[in-house]
Amino acid sequence: MAALYGDRDAARGADATFRWLTEEVGEVARALRTGDRENLEHEFADALAWLASLANLVEVDLATAMERYRDGCPKCGATPCVCPA
Amino acid sequence: MAALYGDRDAARGADATFRWLTEEVGEVARALRTGDRENLEHEFADALAWLASLANLVEVDLATAMERYRDGCPKCGATPCVCPA
Repeated sequence: MAALYGDRDAARGADATFRWLTEEVGEVARALRTGDRENLEHEFADALAWLASLANLVEVDLATAMERYRDGCPKCGATPCVCPA
Repeated sequence: MAALYGDRDAARGADATFRWLTEEVGEVARALRTGDRENLEHEFADALAWLASLANLVEVDLATAMERYRDGCPKCGATPCVCPA
């Protein structure tokens, strides 16, 4: 994502990149309602791509960030999660 | 994510899981404005976790979905992207 879009993301800035992310999350919503499987997969990929672009822009490494979930639910510590609903 | 939350996600359903996703995207917005680095990393991880939960629930494999970006920008085909802004 950084190689593909890093320069464009930096030029656009975090606020506009966040706006694009929310637009893509909206497209996931629409695909859940109306889309076929291919469209659904497409929109999930685009939402994740924009989340990754935004993370790159503010220097968050998503793989490192996800270590939070490595040893079970970060709230209750269990796998599967046993937090109160 | 499926092992951690799959049963809870299935019981909750796609609409409520989508609502949680948008809540976490909102927390990314707040962390961009006010958060320290640790909080920012935490909120990106939670947003990605909910996106993954929702994807699992509707049987979208995010890794497969992301192949769309493997050979360059899916719109212009180039790396880096050269789409019109």
